[in-house]
Amino acid sequence: MRAKVRILNIRSGHFDVFINPKDAQEWKLHPNDLVKIESGKRSIYGSVVIGDFVESGEVGLSLDILDAYQFSEGELVSITPSETPESVRYIKKKMRGEKLRKVEIETIVRDIVDRKLRNTEISALVTAIEVNGLDMDEIAALTIAMAETGDMLDIDRKPIMDVHSIGGVPGNKTNIIVVPIVAAAGLTIPKTSSRAITSAAGTADVVEVFTNVTLSLDEIKRIVEKIGACLVWGGALNLAPADDLTIHVERRLSLDPRGLMLASIMSKKYAIGSQYILIDIPTGKGAKVETMEEARSLAKDFIELGKKLGQYVEVAITYGGQPIGYTVGPALEAKEALETLMTGKGPGSLVEKALGLAGILLEMGGVAPRGMGKKVAREILESGKAYEKIKEIIEEQGGDPNIKPEDIPIGDKTYTIHAQTSGYVTGIDNKAITAIAREAGAPEDKGAGVKLHVKVGEKVKEGDPLFTIHAESESRLDKAIILARRLEPIKIEGMVLQVLGNL
Amino acid sequence: MRAKVRILNIRSGHFDVFINPKDAQEWKLHPNDLVKIESGKRSIYGSVVIGDFVESGEVGLSLDILDAYQFSEGELVSITPSETPESVRYIKKKMRGEKLRKVEIETIVRDIVDRKLRNTEISALVTAIEVNGLDMDEIAALTIAMAETGDMLDIDRKPIMDVHSIGGVPGNKTNIIVVPIVAAAGLTIPKTSSRAITSAAGTADVVEVFTNVTLSLDEIKRIVEKIGACLVWGGALNLAPADDLTIHVERRLSLDPRGLMLASIMSKKYAIGSQYILIDIPTGKGAKVETMEEARSLAKDFIELGKKLGQYVEVAITYGGQPIGYTVGPALEAKEALETLMTGKGPGSLVEKALGLAGILLEMGGVAPRGMGKKVAREILESGKAYEKIKEIIEEQGGDPNIKPEDIPIGDKTYTIHAQTSGYVTGIDNKAITAIAREAGAPEDKGAGVKLHVKVGEKVKEGDPLFTIHAESESRLDKAIILARRLEPIKIEGMVLQVLGNL
Repeated sequence: MRAKVRILNIRSGHFDVFINPKDAQEWKLHPNDLVKIESGKRSIYGSVVIGDFVESGEVGLSLDILDAYQFSEGELVSITPSETPESVRYIKKKMRGEKLRKVEIETIVRDIVDRKLRNTEISALVTAIEVNGLDMDEIAALTIAMAETGDMLDIDRKPIMDVHSIGGVPGNKTNIIVVPIVAAAGLTIPKTSSRAITSAAGTADVVEVFTNVTLSLDEIKRIVEKIGACLVWGGALNLAPADDLTIHVERRLSLDPRGLMLASIMSKKYAIGSQYILIDIPTGKGAKVETMEEARSLAKDFIELGKKLGQYVEVAITYGGQPIGYTVGPALEAKEALETLMTGKGPGSLVEKALGLAGILLEMGGVAPRGMGKKVAREILESGKAYEKIKEIIEEQGGDPNIKPEDIPIGDKTYTIHAQTSGYVTGIDNKAITAIAREAGAPEDKGAGVKLHVKVGEKVKEGDPLFTIHAESESRLDKAIILARRLEPIKIEGMVLQVLGNL
Repeated sequence: MRAKVRILNIRSGHFDVFINPKDAQEWKLHPNDLVKIESGKRSIYGSVVIGDFVESGEVGLSLDILDAYQFSEGELVSITPSETPESVRYIKKKMRGEKLRKVEIETIVRDIVDRKLRNTEISALVTAIEVNGLDMDEIAALTIAMAETGDMLDIDRKPIMDVHSIGGVPGNKTNIIVVPIVAAAGLTIPKTSSRAITSAAGTADVVEVFTNVTLSLDEIKRIVEKIGACLVWGGALNLAPADDLTIHVERRLSLDPRGLMLASIMSKKYAIGSQYILIDIPTGKGAKVETMEEARSLAKDFIELGKKLGQYVEVAITYGGQPIGYTVGPALEAKEALETLMTGKGPGSLVEKALGLAGILLEMGGVAPRGMGKKVAREILESGKAYEKIKEIIEEQGGDPNIKPEDIPIGDKTYTIHAQTSGYVTGIDNKAITAIAREAGAPEDKGAGVKLHVKVGEKVKEGDPLFTIHAESESRLDKAIILARRLEPIKIEGMVLQVLGNL
C-alpha cells in the first residue's frame, strides 16, 4: 500500500503510524499491528493507530518518528504489515537460559533500533536477562552492537580519556571538577553525562545551569579537538540508541540487570571512542551499590568487559554513604562546583573525591607518574588552571565564561530543618535527601534542592540547622517540608529511640 | 488536574489519554506516562499522548477506552500521574522464582484489568511465568481472579455442561455438532468460542456464516434458559478480560506458558458457570500438542485445576495429526457441519469425533449410562433431533433456521492441486493447510479456504485431485496457489525422496 505522509503534532513515546479507518479495513490492518514504512532508502517500523485524524490515502507519522527520521509532508511512502520479528526467537532462547551468539545479539539490537521490537518484546528481553543473565561474551557483543547501531564520534586527538560514575549518590557534581583538571593537564576527555532520571540532578542538569549542554556530535568534535574537553548531555546525541529504548523499559520495571547496566555504560564510551576509562562506583548505605563485596565484583566485570572491547578500564570504589559536598539540586550543585573550581577549595568530600579520580586519570593518561596523580591534580586545581579550563568549556558550549557563583539563582522559597536534640550526625539518608529535593521541584526547577549544613560525624546541638530546602514555589516548598518531616533524613545519635515503661 | 473529556475517534489497541502540549508542560506529564482518570466512581488508567488534537483544558480519550468504560463528551474528569504499580513488585518476585500468594495474584490481575499494568509489564509477567512456571495453587488463584474481575453468567438451569478444544487442528468444526446433540438430550451447554487468531477459522467464525454470534450476556442467558444451548463468540463478552490482555502479549512473543493457558481456558468456563467440562486435546504431528505424553500431562493438569475450582473435568485426547473432515475455512466448514447435522452422516473423522465427545458429555451429565454415551449421541444425530436443535440455536441467535448447505456461498475462484505420482497419502500437514487457507483469505473472507479430496491412508493415482483452494478474489487465489506449490501439504508415499549416484 502507498500513502502520503502527514506529519502529526503528537508525541506518544513510541512510533505511531496513523491510518484512516477506511484504509485500515481495506488493508486489513488492526490497532497496534506492526507495519513497515518505506521511502527510498529509509525504512522504519511503527504501530498502527486507526483514526480519522488522517484522510484515506494518507499516513500520519508522529513527532517521535520525525525526531529520529526525516520524512516530509506529502511524501509518498509504502506501508507493509510486518510479521513477528526474527529476533523474538532469540529472546525466547534467552528465556530458556541459552547463550546467545554474536549475530543473534546483533539482530536483537538492530531490531530494537529499527523499532521492529517494541516495549512488549524489549520487556521480555529485559526480564529474560534479569532471570538468566548474560555472560561476558554476550555483554561485549551487546555493547559493540549497541554502539555501532548509533552514531560514533571520532576525535582526532589521542588518547581519549573518560570518567563515569554509576550514580546513586546525591550531590555528585564531582566530574564537573574532574574533567577540567584532566583537560588542563593536556589530556582529551569528551565527557557526556545524563540528566536525572530518579535522582535530583544529573551532571547534565547541573552543567546546564551555566552553559548549553545540548550539542551535536560535530560541535563536540570541534570543541574537544580545540580545548580537549566538553561537558555535554549524552541524551541529545544518537549514541547507542538501543540502550535508551531498553532503559525506558528497565525503569518501568525498576530493573537494572548487571549485563544491561555494563553494556549501557560501556556502549556510550565505545561510541565516543574512549580508550582509558575510569569508573566510579559510589558504595555505601543508600547508594546503588551497598557493599564492598558487590562493588569489587562489579569492578571486576567492568575491567574484564573493557579488555574485550580493547579499552583500558580502572575502577575507583568511592564512599557513597552520604551526599557528596553539601548541595543537592541543579543550581545549588552548579554553584558549589563553580566555587570549588574558582577558589581551589571546597567541601572535603567533594574536593578529595575529585582529586582522587582526576589523579587516577592523569596517571592512566601518562601525564603524572604513578602515585603522583592526586598531587598533580591538586596543583592544577589550586593554581586556577582547572578554573581556566572550565571557563573555556563554558564559552565553547555557548555560556558566559565569566559567570560567578553568586550569579546563579537559587530557589528563594526556603525552609530550614533544625536538630531536635544534641549529638553526632551518624547518618544521612541518600534516598530521603533525593526524594525531598525532587519534591521541592528538582531537577525541572533548577533552583530547587537541599543544602546540607552538616555531614556525617559532625557534632550538633539542639536547635542547630541541619539542612535547608530550596524551592521556586511555595506549593512545592510545602510538599517538600511535609516529606522532610516524615522522612527525617539526618540521624543524630543520642536521640531517644524508644521509651518502655509499665503499661 | 481537571479537564473536560473529548472523545477521539481513534483506536490504538491501548488506553491513550491525549493531553495538550501546554497542559502537559504545566502538569509535568511526559509521553507514555501512566495517568489515572477519575470521574465519580469510575477510575481507569491510560498512557499520556501529547498532541494538539485536544485543546488546553481538554483530555482526549480514545475509543479503546470508550469500548470498556462510559465517559461522555464534555464530562469533567480528574487526571493524576501514577507511580509504578505495586503489582510490579510481585512480577519481580516471580522473576526470582518465588511462589506468589493469592492476594498478590489478585492484585496483578486487578491492575491488568484497570490498565495500570500495560503491555510492558504484562510482557515481563508472561516471560517470568514462561521461565519459572506457576504451581497449581497459583494457577487456580489466577483463574478465579481472572473470572471475577470480569462479567459472570448465572444461568438458571443446572447442571451446566461445557466443551472446549485447545485447538491446533484445522477444520475442527466438531463442537458445532456436539453442542446441539448435548442440548437435544436435555442438557444445558452455553458454548462460547473464539475467532481464528492463527488458524483459518475459529468456531465463532464458522457459526457466524449461518447466524449471529455477537450476543450480550443477557441474551445468552435468555436463549440458554429457553433452549439449553448457544454457540456464541466469547470475545464479544467481558469474560475474564485480563486474559484477553495477557493473550495479546503472549501472541506477540509467540509464547503460551502452560499455567497461563490453563487459566485462560478455565477462567472463561468459570465465568460462564460451567460445572461439567470436557476438554478436547487434539494430539498429533502439526497439532498444538504433538505427543501422547504431553497430552496426558496436560490432561492431568486440567483435571487437577478443575478440582481446585469445584468443576468436574474430563479430558479427551483426540487424533489431531490431520484436518478434521474435508474442509478448512469458515463457509466451507459451516457447510460441512450443516450437512452432517441435516443428514446425520458425514466424514468419519468429523462424525466419530463429534459423537465421541458428545457421548462423554451425555455420560457426565447423567443422561446416558456409562459406556452408552456415544450410542445415544448417534441416535440423537441420526434421528434429526440435533438438526432440530441447531435450527433453534440459529433462530434464537437471529439467523435463518431454514438455511440449506447449498445456500452457503463458497469462494468461486478455485484451483485444484493434483497428485504428481501414485501412492498412498501418508501425511497432511496441518500448518501448511492452515497457511494456504489463510493466504486464500480465510478467516476474513468467509468463502475462502481449502477443500480436501483425500485424507491420510487413502490411495491416489497420478493426476487425481488432492485439494481445491477456494478464494473470493483472483489475487488471493494466486497467492494461495504459489504457497500451495511451495509447501506441498499432502505427502504421497511412493514419491522419489532422494536420488543418490556417483558424483
